[in-house]
Amino acid sequence: MDLKNLHISEKLVPHNYLRLAQDAQKAKETARRELLEKRKLPVHGWPDAHIEEMVQQLASLDSNNFPKKAGVGEREARIACPLVARRHYNFGHGIGRSGDLLEAQPKAAGSTLMANLTNSLLLDLIHEMGVRSCRACFLSPLATGMSLLLCLLTLRQKRPAAKYVLWSRIDQKSCFKSIITAGLTPLIIQPRLADNGALSTDLPAFARKVEEVGAEKILCFCTTTSCFAPRNCDDIIEVAKLATQHAVPHLVNNAYGLQSTHLTHQLEQAQRLGRLDLFVQSTDKNLLVPVGGAIIAGFDEELVRSVAKAYPGRASSSQTLDVFMTLLSLGRVGYMNFVKERKTNFEYLRECMHKFAQEHAEQVVETKGNPISLALSLSQLQDVGGELTKFGSMLYTRGISGARVLTVGDTRKIEGHEFVNWGTHHSDTSTAYLTMAAGLGITKAEIHNCFEKLNECWQTVMNQKFKFKT
Amino acid sequence: MDLKNLHISEKLVPHNYLRLAQDAQKAKETARRELLEKRKLPVHGWPDAHIEEMVQQLASLDSNNFPKKAGVGEREARIACPLVARRHYNFGHGIGRSGDLLEAQPKAAGSTLMANLTNSLLLDLIHEMGVRSCRACFLSPLATGMSLLLCLLTLRQKRPAAKYVLWSRIDQKSCFKSIITAGLTPLIIQPRLADNGALSTDLPAFARKVEEVGAEKILCFCTTTSCFAPRNCDDIIEVAKLATQHAVPHLVNNAYGLQSTHLTHQLEQAQRLGRLDLFVQSTDKNLLVPVGGAIIAGFDEELVRSVAKAYPGRASSSQTLDVFMTLLSLGRVGYMNFVKERKTNFEYLRECMHKFAQEHAEQVVETKGNPISLALSLSQLQDVGGELTKFGSMLYTRGISGARVLTVGDTRKIEGHEFVNWGTHHSDTSTAYLTMAAGLGITKAEIHNCFEKLNECWQTVMNQKFKFKT
Amino acid sequence: MDLKNLHISEKLVPHNYLRLAQDAQKAKETARRELLEKRKLPVHGWPDAHIEEMVQQLASLDSNNFPKKAGVGEREARIACPLVARRHYNFGHGIGRSGDLLEAQPKAAGSTLMANLTNSLLLDLIHEMGVRSCRACFLSPLATGMSLLLCLLTLRQKRPAAKYVLWSRIDQKSCFKSIITAGLTPLIIQPRLADNGALSTDLPAFARKVEEVGAEKILCFCTTTSCFAPRNCDDIIEVAKLATQHAVPHLVNNAYGLQSTHLTHQLEQAQRLGRLDLFVQSTDKNLLVPVGGAIIAGFDEELVRSVAKAYPGRASSSQTLDVFMTLLSLGRVGYMNFVKERKTNFEYLRECMHKFAQEHAEQVVETKGNPISLALSLSQLQDVGGELTKFGSMLYTRGISGARVLTVGDTRKIEGHEFVNWGTHHSDTSTAYLTMAAGLGITKAEIHNCFEKLNECWQTVMNQKFKFKT
Amino acid sequence: MDLKNLHISEKLVPHNYLRLAQDAQKAKETARRELLEKRKLPVHGWPDAHIEEMVQQLASLDSNNFPKKAGVGEREARIACPLVARRHYNFGHGIGRSGDLLEAQPKAAGSTLMANLTNSLLLDLIHEMGVRSCRACFLSPLATGMSLLLCLLTLRQKRPAAKYVLWSRIDQKSCFKSIITAGLTPLIIQPRLADNGALSTDLPAFARKVEEVGAEKILCFCTTTSCFAPRNCDDIIEVAKLATQHAVPHLVNNAYGLQSTHLTHQLEQAQRLGRLDLFVQSTDKNLLVPVGGAIIAGFDEELVRSVAKAYPGRASSSQTLDVFMTLLSLGRVGYMNFVKERKTNFEYLRECMHKFAQEHAEQVVETKGNPISLALSLSQLQDVGGELTKFGSMLYTRGISGARVLTVGDTRKIEGHEFVNWGTHHSDTSTAYLTMAAGLGITKAEIHNCFEKLNECWQTVMNQKFKFKT
Repeated sequence: MDLKNLHISEKLVPHNYLRLAQDAQKAKETARRELLEKRKLPVHGWPDAHIEEMVQQLASLDSNNFPKKAGVGEREARIACPLVARRHYNFGHGIGRSGDLLEAQPKAAGSTLMANLTNSLLLDLIHEMGVRSCRACFLSPLATGMSLLLCLLTLRQKRPAAKYVLWSRIDQKSCFKSIITAGLTPLIIQPRLADNGALSTDLPAFARKVEEVGAEKILCFCTTTSCFAPRNCDDIIEVAKLATQHAVPHLVNNAYGLQSTHLTHQLEQAQRLGRLDLFVQSTDKNLLVPVGGAIIAGFDEELVRSVAKAYPGRASSSQTLDVFMTLLSLGRVGYMNFVKERKTNFEYLRECMHKFAQEHAEQVVETKGNPISLALSLSQLQDVGGELTKFGSMLYTRGISGARVLTVGDTRKIEGHEFVNWGTHHSDTSTAYLTMAAGLGITKAEIHNCFEKLNECWQTVMNQKFKFKT
Repeated sequence: MDLKNLHISEKLVPHNYLRLAQDAQKAKETARRELLEKRKLPVHGWPDAHIEEMVQQLASLDSNNFPKKAGVGEREARIACPLVARRHYNFGHGIGRSGDLLEAQPKAAGSTLMANLTNSLLLDLIHEMGVRSCRACFLSPLATGMSLLLCLLTLRQKRPAAKYVLWSRIDQKSCFKSIITAGLTPLIIQPRLADNGALSTDLPAFARKVEEVGAEKILCFCTTTSCFAPRNCDDIIEVAKLATQHAVPHLVNNAYGLQSTHLTHQLEQAQRLGRLDLFVQSTDKNLLVPVGGAIIAGFDEELVRSVAKAYPGRASSSQTLDVFMTLLSLGRVGYMNFVKERKTNFEYLRECMHKFAQEHAEQVVETKGNPISLALSLSQLQDVGGELTKFGSMLYTRGISGARVLTVGDTRKIEGHEFVNWGTHHSDTSTAYLTMAAGLGITKAEIHNCFEKLNECWQTVMNQKFKFKT
Repeated sequence: MDLKNLHISEKLVPHNYLRLAQDAQKAKETARRELLEKRKLPVHGWPDAHIEEMVQQLASLDSNNFPKKAGVGEREARIACPLVARRHYNFGHGIGRSGDLLEAQPKAAGSTLMANLTNSLLLDLIHEMGVRSCRACFLSPLATGMSLLLCLLTLRQKRPAAKYVLWSRIDQKSCFKSIITAGLTPLIIQPRLADNGALSTDLPAFARKVEEVGAEKILCFCTTTSCFAPRNCDDIIEVAKLATQHAVPHLVNNAYGLQSTHLTHQLEQAQRLGRLDLFVQSTDKNLLVPVGGAIIAGFDEELVRSVAKAYPGRASSSQTLDVFMTLLSLGRVGYMNFVKERKTNFEYLRECMHKFAQEHAEQVVETKGNPISLALSLSQLQDVGGELTKFGSMLYTRGISGARVLTVGDTRKIEGHEFVNWGTHHSDTSTAYLTMAAGLGITKAEIHNCFEKLNECWQTVMNQKFKFKT
Repeated sequence: MDLKNLHISEKLVPHNYLRLAQDAQKAKETARRELLEKRKLPVHGWPDAHIEEMVQQLASLDSNNFPKKAGVGEREARIACPLVARRHYNFGHGIGRSGDLLEAQPKAAGSTLMANLTNSLLLDLIHEMGVRSCRACFLSPLATGMSLLLCLLTLRQKRPAAKYVLWSRIDQKSCFKSIITAGLTPLIIQPRLADNGALSTDLPAFARKVEEVGAEKILCFCTTTSCFAPRNCDDIIEVAKLATQHAVPHLVNNAYGLQSTHLTHQLEQAQRLGRLDLFVQSTDKNLLVPVGGAIIAGFDEELVRSVAKAYPGRASSSQTLDVFMTLLSLGRVGYMNFVKERKTNFEYLRECMHKFAQEHAEQVVETKGNPISLALSLSQLQDVGGELTKFGSMLYTRGISGARVLTVGDTRKIEGHEFVNWGTHHSDTSTAYLTMAAGLGITKAEIHNCFEKLNECWQTVMNQKFKFKT
């Protein structure tokens, strides 16, 4: 309702009532202007109505929403189902152009504006979380695995002769499959297994492998920060130093690491003391949106842009919309509260786990380098067949999701590569264990509830084991 | 409201009113059962309320929506912003698992069910549209270019030694960039230019190139069906025969071809008479949903599945949701009506264009092999600088989107490859022209409106040209 | 997105794309300005997105939506359930003030503006429909019966000594109960029964009754326009003349008569040739919104305002919102199309009914004064017990709603008044019949479907009757 | 998704994933069954998705949402504007029938079920809040004033000879206008003014008036519980005793009193020790829904039903929907938390006000009988013209809504009755004051913010006053 319209309305509503109402709009307009001017996360989250107003205003700048138009092209962003149009706030054109994910679309000024703004807000968030040297990032409308694939394909354009990826083993398929699908050859560096079961990067093995195959044949080092205990965050600072030394690119899978200041600190230091080209993190785990996007970030603007340019064609703007709305809804304070609460809840998880371990004569594997996940030995369930699987399934049936029971002895062949003790990240793992994570958004009540159920299930399984034995 | 609950409700509402209401639910329940049992497009579209009910029921099968749960994993599909949760009907887990886009997710039975059902409905639609021999397809949560990239990477896993893609030139960047980003080398086969300006596949050139580089070095033939006139649909039947002859895979970019029975007939025949491995079509242009998805389809179930398996990690379920809702909303009859109307409107577009050509002494380029797009010469605007660009811009400013003015003489270098007369698909194009398309969802009013504006702009430009000359 | 914000955005999106997008907003802004300035129905309906934008802008002018506020009153329009807030677009304050339904609310400039604007649009609609002399109207957030009650109570304030309401019998409870609940005494004037069963106003009886009780004791005449055949619209012109003659107010229940130009013409003429004080029509039947509102209209602005002033306290703005959105959605053209289609469908209903009557040896009661409803004799079902009820119930079970079977012989006592042959509007009705109406929004398919089912049911009932007899 | 459909789905999703998902639905189904069986407030609030599912299921039981239907009646609940249909979850038929607001609608089993269920939940809430003897209540789709009018009209049907309403003065127009519009004569009993300014019911005056006009001429006593300080809640227990003694009905305006256990206790005691026929409370203030409804409650089921029966015709179901959703969303715990917080915040408001009074040499009027509102003298602003109005306006401009400045000396004539010192509830009020209320939903931050602004404004006004004087 602009000023002119309000003036007209004075025939219908007393002038002073309207003036007051108009004054009240100013705070909202100022917030909007600041967002566009500074392109930083708002300090405080916006109310839902303001977010929707902003989004609708942006959508009205796209040509498919122009009141008068005739479309004689092959792609006119017509939306057949009204429910679909509604849930996308009438955005239809997606983002990017055939050449480049970051290019402006003439038909979609609003989508373009939203996408660019979202990328700016994400860069601000990465800075806030501690990766101060980060120079550029963009929201990739692809989940983490596919985003890593795009990074690998981009690096290959720059190093066409290199076909090896030195990869610190982590038993999660996505990243490994990215390497395979990219047509590259993974060289798997198994982590070092400490006496207590903790796993850390085998730096000497990295160095040896470089010597062995030659730096020029290596497309990049590929490391992982966030992971299931007892695997630690890779020692990315030392790998980064090695990368500098041999002039090998370094790609970091920071899957759910953006939520932890411990891990973002590693990223910042790796860049300062060595080489870290690109780091990729999922939006679902770090920003609490539905699965489907990742943030591709780096320290060299040109390189990050070249990844976006490697993307052939347009892409969905649905992920952008989710992230944009979520960032406005949380604001910096809202996000940082989530970060703090997660940290507190991780400590609570640790306490609960230690208590459980003591009571049931098991061990918590102490992994100083993993600020999100913890592992608990299940040695007493190991010697009898079937108990472990049953235990895991009992937990899940009781609504405990995400707690994983890892057994020993499962060997899996993936795309021609054999993984002994699949799931445990190491061929020599000898004890079964349970991992749990305190991810962003977890509540204390969930952890409490989880350990209650854990105790119940443990009791049941142990009773049965006893029966079974006798 | 199940029977038991209705029975209880009889204390609040007379029994016979409830019984009638209950009877009325049966048609809805039957429709739901049929959908799950037959997994075919419903004949008639469903009302919005039934679609939403179905979608909400599916979402409630995902673990993040279970009333009692505790999540101690790293990915629990928590959604921070209520507006985001709402627009996704509380779906959060995406589709696929780290290994495979088509694998069921234990945490997300509802998402899995929706994804598999959508793929079945799409296969039915492809059959209905005429590609009766199609054996498998899946909704790729990637736009067309990126989906083609995935197909290329999959084919390369099967033919690691082949690095060339024989590509019938079409001046649209996405597909070309897919080849480049995949790390492959495009061998560009320029189409044949007829006297009237129409462009068709240069089959002898294809054959010669195979001889020249050797079939085993060729990853695949890459052809395109739907395109801007005066380029025709590639002669995919003959290319398919060549593919059989040399045992070379054949990938078809069927971008917006699913909407035309003429083009789907070509696909079916190409498969019957030759070799066609995979064909890819966008969901936005063919199904009128927002940009972001493509259907990857083929005649060998195993091959199509291997493309899905090459996808590393999870993916957004947003595209699935859009397509699922749209297919239920339209039904077979609704979709076929769109198809018929488009065909009628294409004829209307042709009439209007011929009338305009006659009145203004220009030519319509007769392209029998293009059932969607038409081209109109702009020879009178060509000899004076700037008019063409101005003309195009005038049209756009008046709300005519999608009408493209193609000038002669623009040479562009893309990823090291030079394209003379970029935009016209051929180096020897000599006349500027205007293309228009009658895409799915176009209305007669739009075409009418478009030619009214076209006449206005033409008048203005010609007047100015006259002034300029004198 | 105001101009200043767009200017800032040029750092994120090319200037010319934005300018075009900005230009495209003008049509929308102009439409908004015109609405506020002229306060007339827009010619063409607005798209959903524009309606919602308008509504949200209005809601943001209410104090409960001000970004910075503290409420220390007893009523601050806080909304506890987010779903409720959402469905009301955050409107919470209702309309009116304790003194007057039409008074502006200091806390709710937006609600006030919407309410006043809606009343202006409704007046425009009444004019368009043919009651050109109408001077004032307002949307009463009460259904028709309750709105009539409010009119009666208002009239009584002006004629405290009068306690009788002369009411032309119509067997529908609402209006009758309004008189009773108002504490007034109805004097029932039975209509005249023609030989063919048609019912029309008994004017001499009206005149006699005035003589009998004295005009000063009569609060008002109460007549009805729209009704079930074979009752006709009351002869409101002649009653209006009588009203002038005796200086008695005249209240018309125009329940669903606004949709018929035939009936609105009667209203206009009644006013020109006689006296018609207030006429009341429902919003659900005439504007296709959910049940709950009525339009109270009249020819003397002061009188209409005094009805609004009689309303004690605030009221829901939900009905206003529904009507406002619906009027914007339809526009004048959209509404008039509904009106035309209804008329055409009424003729189709008449045809179908005549055809059915001929085939089954029954009669259509010809009622020239009823442009909406028709009656069909059911003489053959009458002589056997139970068939009629069964027939009605069979129709309803088959999804035919609104078709009413009227039996003869049902006497009902309502609030001390006896109605012989209740439902037929006359004590001497001798033949059972079926009524149907072609109301606003009815489709040809519905009528077709209805007669198909009618034939089925007739067949079944007649077969059973035959069996029963033999 | 019923069991049969889930079984079919096993071809698309592994059986065990589905079984788990199915198990998880049970809690939801149990909650639904309990609601229908016990018809009591759920202990804990339901999540939004469950509420919407319930509401949609109910709507699907209404005939306008039956998949196959043909409507040939005059009212078929067609909804023209999709946005309107959506916001009403496709409910269109309203509640009640022409005879009775509580009667079931054959065409609308779902609406009927929702309405009856809502009334049951409200009765449970009234019991929970302390009015244990309450026997019946219903949601009136009318705001408080209009609901009081309906009660008065109903009482008059039972006491046709009585025309006086003995009304304990409260300077809020709605209730007073109800009496006038009902055609009754108010006899105004001014409250007693204590030395400190507090106002309480003048019982002797009530008794004297009964003697004066005769009990049989008195329709009812009309008292008020919740009100602006320094007026206290009427002494309804003593008035109730008087009502018993003289066999006069007693109607209580409990406008926003349901939120206070102090006031509900008065109601319960009044009923136990005397006579209290009906009490009416608004839904917006007590349940935090948009303005538009009231709960009419009483201790005699027959009497409450007769109020519902006096309502002529159908009514909007919009208020029912709001209340139903809100009660499910809050649950008993949620509502009781609101009640507790309000009480705490009222104490905080009192503290802040005392502090302010001390600092600025003003007085808080101690009103023990008002648990919601407080008054602060403004004696220093009183002697100079204009300051008071200015002070009030300054507060409002700063976003403080609901704080009312009451000046002395304003005499108003309403419907022929003169109110000296209008707004202060008493003709002899001598000091201007400011009232504030801690209503349901208020936050501590609002109160804090309010006193900050209050201090600012006070400073400004006092400075100007000083200047003005010198």
